[in-house]
Amino acid sequence: MGLEKITGRIAADLEGLKQFTATPGNGCTRLPFTKEARDAVNYLKDIMTEAGLEVWEDEVGNVFGILKGDEPDEPCVMMGSHYDSVKNGGDFDGIAGVVCAVEVARQLKERGVTLKRSFVAAGFCDEEGLRFGTGYFGSGAMLGKRDVEYCKKFKDADGISIYDAMVSYGLEPEKITDAKWPEGSIGSFLELHIEQGPVLDAEHTELGLVNCIVGIQRYMVTVYGRADHAGTTPMDMRLDAAEAATKVISRIPDWAREKGEGTVATTGFIRTTPGGMNIVAEKVEFTVDIRSTNNDYINDIATKIRVALEIETQKMGGSYEIENKLTITPVMLSEEMLKIMEADCLEKGFSCRYLPSGAGHDALEIGQVIPTVMLFVPSREGRSHCPVEFTKYSDFTKASVIMADLAQKLLEKE
Amino acid sequence: MGLEKITGRIAADLEGLKQFTATPGNGCTRLPFTKEARDAVNYLKDIMTEAGLEVWEDEVGNVFGILKGDEPDEPCVMMGSHYDSVKNGGDFDGIAGVVCAVEVARQLKERGVTLKRSFVAAGFCDEEGLRFGTGYFGSGAMLGKRDVEYCKKFKDADGISIYDAMVSYGLEPEKITDAKWPEGSIGSFLELHIEQGPVLDAEHTELGLVNCIVGIQRYMVTVYGRADHAGTTPMDMRLDAAEAATKVISRIPDWAREKGEGTVATTGFIRTTPGGMNIVAEKVEFTVDIRSTNNDYINDIATKIRVALEIETQKMGGSYEIENKLTITPVMLSEEMLKIMEADCLEKGFSCRYLPSGAGHDALEIGQVIPTVMLFVPSREGRSHCPVEFTKYSDFTKASVIMADLAQKLLEKE
Repeated sequence: MGLEKITGRIAADLEGLKQFTATPGNGCTRLPFTKEARDAVNYLKDIMTEAGLEVWEDEVGNVFGILKGDEPDEPCVMMGSHYDSVKNGGDFDGIAGVVCAVEVARQLKERGVTLKRSFVAAGFCDEEGLRFGTGYFGSGAMLGKRDVEYCKKFKDADGISIYDAMVSYGLEPEKITDAKWPEGSIGSFLELHIEQGPVLDAEHTELGLVNCIVGIQRYMVTVYGRADHAGTTPMDMRLDAAEAATKVISRIPDWAREKGEGTVATTGFIRTTPGGMNIVAEKVEFTVDIRSTNNDYINDIATKIRVALEIETQKMGGSYEIENKLTITPVMLSEEMLKIMEADCLEKGFSCRYLPSGAGHDALEIGQVIPTVMLFVPSREGRSHCPVEFTKYSDFTKASVIMADLAQKLLEKE
Repeated sequence: MGLEKITGRIAADLEGLKQFTATPGNGCTRLPFTKEARDAVNYLKDIMTEAGLEVWEDEVGNVFGILKGDEPDEPCVMMGSHYDSVKNGGDFDGIAGVVCAVEVARQLKERGVTLKRSFVAAGFCDEEGLRFGTGYFGSGAMLGKRDVEYCKKFKDADGISIYDAMVSYGLEPEKITDAKWPEGSIGSFLELHIEQGPVLDAEHTELGLVNCIVGIQRYMVTVYGRADHAGTTPMDMRLDAAEAATKVISRIPDWAREKGEGTVATTGFIRTTPGGMNIVAEKVEFTVDIRSTNNDYINDIATKIRVALEIETQKMGGSYEIENKLTITPVMLSEEMLKIMEADCLEKGFSCRYLPSGAGHDALEIGQVIPTVMLFVPSREGRSHCPVEFTKYSDFTKASVIMADLAQKLLEKE
């Protein structure tokens, strides 16, 4: 069948889903358990049904559509992503992966092949975690990693807990553990997603074979000095927290470059206290976000930061605190599935390359327990989480075909 | 006469003036043209009158007390400082210099010497400039450097102009130029002030002979990069404003140390935009405050900063802006008067040392046109502009005696 027809279907669905935003004209704002989320789920249910899938919504708001195989007790092949967004986000992050999962189901049906296993298209709820300061809620619940206590613990900016939001949305949070799929029921997980980074677009590469979702360590560092008059305090009598802090911050990016292999390190936030232009900084707070496919590299950089803080604050005469805010170890994706996709790309003449995912995804949660693979499509200029986020519909088409081929292989497997 | 008696008088006056604060129990808050300022001026008028001086308040709220010499047309010797404070400041900054000027007048009278020239004790209005974002208002007006336009231009946080504040206070701003003293009428200016820095206290030195008020250059620097996802943007594809900025900021203190001779450089304020821990900084703003007795050193450091900004932003791929916010050239104080005081300290057994003033003072404004000298007393731990500001009364006593000796020499001069 022609790729144009596929592109038309993907385009129609993504255009249809674009309308479910709380901020029309200013990007996609589709927070979990809102009217926009409900509308999107209903839309997804409709297109899943139309594609011939058996559809249901689970206890946490995930939506599934199943194309039953001949041996329904065999582990299924699941493909999906999330339907929620950040505030004023783009029209592709997450939702494109759900639409393409439905599209893969259509292609499988059209191919008329006999499927041994079942294919499941999934739309997960609340991957972004923006509303409640969490993340991977729907996919986590599917794996049995979320409970009632969790739902009551996290609240949004208005003080509404996940639990209360679920109730308002028409769900029964007390039944959350029913959302868990039985052990071994999911044989493999496939996620198609926009890159959200600039690599594929800059290189004009059509598809990204994601071999790893990077590990992350995040720190909040506080350097303590002493507030003194910037004019009357000689250099050798001051405890300048800004000097000590910047002597550490300025070296962090170089440590990431030394490691290479896509390792990144970022200080996105720096705050000086009291912050007067004629007062020596008493306190400097800054963040560090380190990511790498190699966990040793992350640990090494974190150690270098600690050592440098020790040296610089001792030299200065002050002190420091370093608080770990997040630790995620890297998740390696299925080499076997990547090789199938690579060979397929080569055969079809689609340019591709291996690359890590620097951002988290449902695949990060799921990949810890189930063989998982991700396929990236280019993001124009790497822009994401903003209204200008853009990927050509035809890029999704290519990705959907590669994923349909992979799914077919897995579905036919003994 | 006994030093104890002098200490008692200084203590009584400083204790008396302590009460005129808008923040009782939380330091001195005596902003210009307020009830607290009026009360302090009335108190000063009383003690000046009691000391036998002829007292008047000028058109801008400065208060003067004159001890007339035999030849009143000869240039006078003026001694003084300011009676206003910062918010929640200390009980010594400024006001101690006014109190000691009155004390010097008392000592001169007690000595019974015949004075050729007149001695004038001065209490200046609004040196700090905190309320209207200015500075040296009273001493500037005395020199004819302030006009009606200036008074209308600067406003406080409530939108009240200096002009309106003066009117409410009972002054006539239209007559501001009458506050100017005739050219040549002031022969020399003496200012006694707390150090506001840690040098004398740390060295247990009793008096500081201020040979220079440092020059200052202040800059607001903005480094422009690009906001990118901290996870998905490889190191070689990002424009990290935080990296470029900290690579400059971290070296500034070393450049000041290389210059030496009391040169200082400070970054007291750093702000990252957007400031997310997972977003590469798009913009970093920071301040630089450079001070030195040697103007070439200041210029050299400013040049080094520009060169480093050029190099680092080019390497990064971004850009920068640097805005000069303040330029003051160093003011050298009267070597002749310093030598007189040094010899006197030696004779009296008071420990002293030469040092620059890193902060601005009325002497900075006046010293540009009139032979001027400053004498510092120690500030405990260098603390100033805060309620814990502290100097022993007996330290003021020693300073007042040295200044009385100097004044006497100058007053008797042909």
